[in-house]
Amino acid sequence: MSTQATDFFFELEKREKLVTSYLNSKEFEGWFNPPHLKEAVYSYIHRSGKRLRPAVLLLSCGAVGGMEEDAIPAAAAVEMFHTWTLVHDDLIDNDEKRRGGYTVHTQASLWAKQELNYSDSQAKDYGRDIAVLAGDVQQGWAVSLLCDGSLKRKVKPEVTLTLIKMLESYVINTLVSGETLDIQFAKQKIESFKPEQIIDMLWRKTGVLYEYSARAGAMIGLSTTDIDDKRVKALSGFTSKCGTAFQLQDDILGIVGNEKQLGKPIGSDIREGKRTIITYYAFKNASSQQKTKLESILGKPDATKEQINEVTQLLVQLGGISETKQLAEQIIREARPELDALPDSDYKKLLLAWADFMISREF
Amino acid sequence: MSTQATDFFFELEKREKLVTSYLNSKEFEGWFNPPHLKEAVYSYIHRSGKRLRPAVLLLSCGAVGGMEEDAIPAAAAVEMFHTWTLVHDDLIDNDEKRRGGYTVHTQASLWAKQELNYSDSQAKDYGRDIAVLAGDVQQGWAVSLLCDGSLKRKVKPEVTLTLIKMLESYVINTLVSGETLDIQFAKQKIESFKPEQIIDMLWRKTGVLYEYSARAGAMIGLSTTDIDDKRVKALSGFTSKCGTAFQLQDDILGIVGNEKQLGKPIGSDIREGKRTIITYYAFKNASSQQKTKLESILGKPDATKEQINEVTQLLVQLGGISETKQLAEQIIREARPELDALPDSDYKKLLLAWADFMISREF
Repeated sequence: MSTQATDFFFELEKREKLVTSYLNSKEFEGWFNPPHLKEAVYSYIHRSGKRLRPAVLLLSCGAVGGMEEDAIPAAAAVEMFHTWTLVHDDLIDNDEKRRGGYTVHTQASLWAKQELNYSDSQAKDYGRDIAVLAGDVQQGWAVSLLCDGSLKRKVKPEVTLTLIKMLESYVINTLVSGETLDIQFAKQKIESFKPEQIIDMLWRKTGVLYEYSARAGAMIGLSTTDIDDKRVKALSGFTSKCGTAFQLQDDILGIVGNEKQLGKPIGSDIREGKRTIITYYAFKNASSQQKTKLESILGKPDATKEQINEVTQLLVQLGGISETKQLAEQIIREARPELDALPDSDYKKLLLAWADFMISREF
Repeated sequence: MSTQATDFFFELEKREKLVTSYLNSKEFEGWFNPPHLKEAVYSYIHRSGKRLRPAVLLLSCGAVGGMEEDAIPAAAAVEMFHTWTLVHDDLIDNDEKRRGGYTVHTQASLWAKQELNYSDSQAKDYGRDIAVLAGDVQQGWAVSLLCDGSLKRKVKPEVTLTLIKMLESYVINTLVSGETLDIQFAKQKIESFKPEQIIDMLWRKTGVLYEYSARAGAMIGLSTTDIDDKRVKALSGFTSKCGTAFQLQDDILGIVGNEKQLGKPIGSDIREGKRTIITYYAFKNASSQQKTKLESILGKPDATKEQINEVTQLLVQLGGISETKQLAEQIIREARPELDALPDSDYKKLLLAWADFMISREF
């Protein structure tokens, strides 16, 4: 590992710790009740995570000459905002595992069976209920954290209000539209999609919150409400593109990643029939026999391990993985020059290393 | 109907129209996509509703000498905040009807069957997914509306930030804890409860948002961030109590109300086994034979119409309804003197009429 990469991981971990310890402050402990709800609210942040959104928010603040210290509540806010989307998405996707443990709805339905003696169907409902409500209060927590930037640190109230409005209208609506399209796409014919549609959907699901993270960091650093400031635009344009590349890498790891490193099972994207760029490329290159095979297994909730392996091999053989990898690399290459608008600094170097990590990561 | 009551309904309707038309502004139309999500987000506000929370927010603003005009975005915000809790609660309670139409999750699963040809179980998941996501963006919309108070009207940014922080920490956490307790209580023995526990749960579910509505109106009207101002305290104390009485009346209507007037089926509280003050009083007065009968039907999801009628009659006969009614009236009597701290005005008269309506309403 090069010295530069070591520095990057050191700097990433430093910020990860700052944000995690802020979220674990005593101050918040009494907020969440009763106990099942509290445990659900904290469960994902008590597991190890990459905290890439808060990191890019803090680095963006620093890159424009701001004090990272003032941006810590906002950094914690984007992590918490991301967390509620995970809790609700895991329920929607019927996923069982996340970050090496049970998803919130799965865990809560186990509590219902073990501690409350609920029947299977009552326990399933209880799991759903706790996951819905935990995500709801996490969204509230994220917004409160943004408020703290002004109520407890030095962010100007006008800047905080502009950031809250942006998060709770533009960002959430874009993100949820992406999630809704993702659900709807899974039941439509793969061949009916243009790649731009899939890229747009995954940018909505992922890119928009990365774009926001850098924008928020830069606006706090510059103490401005002007989203058209050229440094704000450079940073948000950069992370917006990186966010799309991140999701492409996520889709790749969802097919050919290592379960242990990822902390979640491989193959669920196949069982859910997720429409990814990988399936798009594979289909484009497939014979009609291969297409029939792919279509018969993609989106089959009870597909066997053998069937999952068969589809995985086809996606690899047909170039789905390699072409997606190339696309992700191309997007990062296009993102890098956006930062030319910023003066050279260690922050800028770390942001470029962050971009590379978005697609080189194995977890 | 007395002249005073006519005035009250006229004034209530005026504010209902202001808030509804604010929420239906062209400006928001492009926010929600794709179409199913948009329809889900708007569905409850397109149906007639009482809008009691925005009304009390505006009246509280006026009662302290503020301009109601400046408080309209905040009034729309509390209505929208209430709306997302309805969408998620309806999913949690497996309710089919709301305000004379289908609940969001029921409607969305019908779309899935009729328009998308989904199977029954896929359609059920789709209904759940749309309801979860619609509620999520509605919460975001509520917070954005609060921001507009400062970004578009004359509320001081510090006041808005204080209000957002309060809504997204204290209010949401109290409300969701109440909802979680409501779910958990339904599976516990009725006799294990003290009435204070039930009152506390229903205050959390309902009272806290009423308390907030008046507090927000008063703080905007006074342009203060001081929640301990004596006029702010008088108004929030008053509506906090009224909110509990409102929920008692809600529980009464859920047993002996008129389905058509209410816009939702009677008896679902019985099928879900909701722990209300009504069931508490009835149990207290019941013979052991009557207790066995009540316990065998309360919380039985597939209870027949006859069984529901049987329980309804028992709840009436055993004084559950009348004692709850008396309690609600007593709470309103105790709430009224809170307003002594305010100067006499038409606003104060309307607030007192509003309190009476909270428990005299038949819908």
